[in-house]
Amino acid sequence: MRIALMQDTARPLELEHNLALIDAAAVQAVSAGAELLLTPELFAFGYVPAQIRKQVSAEAVDDARSRLREIARARGIAMVWSLPGRESPQERGITAALADERGALLAEYQKVQLYGPEEKAAFRPGQQPPSVTSYRGVNLGLLVCYDVEFPEMVRAAAVRGAELVLVPTALAGDEASVPGVLLPARAIENGISLAYANHCGIEAELDFDGRSVVVGPSGQRLGELGTEAGLLVVDLPAAAEESGGAEYLQDRRADLHRAWL
Amino acid sequence: MRIALMQDTARPLELEHNLALIDAAAVQAVSAGAELLLTPELFAFGYVPAQIRKQVSAEAVDDARSRLREIARARGIAMVWSLPGRESPQERGITAALADERGALLAEYQKVQLYGPEEKAAFRPGQQPPSVTSYRGVNLGLLVCYDVEFPEMVRAAAVRGAELVLVPTALAGDEASVPGVLLPARAIENGISLAYANHCGIEAELDFDGRSVVVGPSGQRLGELGTEAGLLVVDLPAAAEESGGAEYLQDRRADLHRAWL
Repeated sequence: MRIALMQDTARPLELEHNLALIDAAAVQAVSAGAELLLTPELFAFGYVPAQIRKQVSAEAVDDARSRLREIARARGIAMVWSLPGRESPQERGITAALADERGALLAEYQKVQLYGPEEKAAFRPGQQPPSVTSYRGVNLGLLVCYDVEFPEMVRAAAVRGAELVLVPTALAGDEASVPGVLLPARAIENGISLAYANHCGIEAELDFDGRSVVVGPSGQRLGELGTEAGLLVVDLPAAAEESGGAEYLQDRRADLHRAWL
Repeated sequence: MRIALMQDTARPLELEHNLALIDAAAVQAVSAGAELLLTPELFAFGYVPAQIRKQVSAEAVDDARSRLREIARARGIAMVWSLPGRESPQERGITAALADERGALLAEYQKVQLYGPEEKAAFRPGQQPPSVTSYRGVNLGLLVCYDVEFPEMVRAAAVRGAELVLVPTALAGDEASVPGVLLPARAIENGISLAYANHCGIEAELDFDGRSVVVGPSGQRLGELGTEAGLLVVDLPAAAEESGGAEYLQDRRADLHRAWL
């Protein structure tokens, strides 16, 4: 499977502008032969949790979702996007959703590990494990941003059969060890691939790191971007590729681990 | 705290030779000002699980333990060593033990994650979480080799208060991603330091990687060896050093993780 990751700068609450960037990335991804486009966390509204809480209604979220589905359908490419949840502003979390190339929703996941005081004040944390959905023969897992820094979250996707975990993210502040160390470790310790699509540039007061990356099951970097806007197109390795991950999943003494956490 | 890691080549079942190497490392560590010496997995007997099962009696293990305690006492340095357990050859596991500078045993741990068919045939896996013991103001955790490749095992040490996890290991076959990627990830995701002391050179049929390493709580390499024998002396960072680990331990949703593993 060939996938594309969008890395760009959103404008806070400027839905039209941000959707136009996503649409342009979808067009570019299709022309590059990609079958799926991964976009960054909360890109349609910008990564502005407090402003989203105050100013984005449930109806506005519904509208954004419909328009993202329409981009997938019109451009003929599966997409992963991240939006606030469908509930009222007081009740909702941060979600990631997978739609197929006809715009049909295949999976939705609510971020479990909220990051920092602003996010925790603006959103509710999810209570469900990462969803895993087969698309064109590949088992796709969904997680969001900070989730992936917890080995338990990626393990939960891997034990549910995920072969590729797709991660919309919003990583600011020069945290190079997340894409550089934690992502490869997650891949190796589970024998899976991960794709991590970040914002770049300055949105509101945050300076985003970029460095979107795809890592393969041996921790190898299959492709990565720098700190500028761009589209990363990567061919995933065949599922049969050798890795130690299957042994980790088989050898892990889950009964003991569960009791000790 | 200043610690020393021994990296060397053991001779299979040649206890006198191997203890002499450990003693020489203890002398060198003391003269370098180290307060603790970490030695590789099963070093006193060599990493030869099948031969140990067949040829090393419980009495021989007791004798080796007494002599290791005597090295610690005579040289005046705390030590972590790895031996077969105290039980009969059919009932024992692979252990790591911590003794203080008077040779008193402070902690013992039995490897939970046995590696590969030979080890699984020769030893019994442990059932207890990593022990954590305070020594000179630092909370020391013990794990062995393959254990550390499982994030759940290091998490179990960190939630029990470990600030430094000491890992005797026997890593063969050019697995550079273990010291290079997984160890730094374990440090970052828990905000702790880890020390990983390996064999080097050829023992029986195995070619050991060396690359013993100490990583700090931000994943930084505080010191490392190449593939040759040597002693690595490292000053640990002060406990107050900034890291994200405390937040991970606080933020992790252990109730959910436990249910999903």
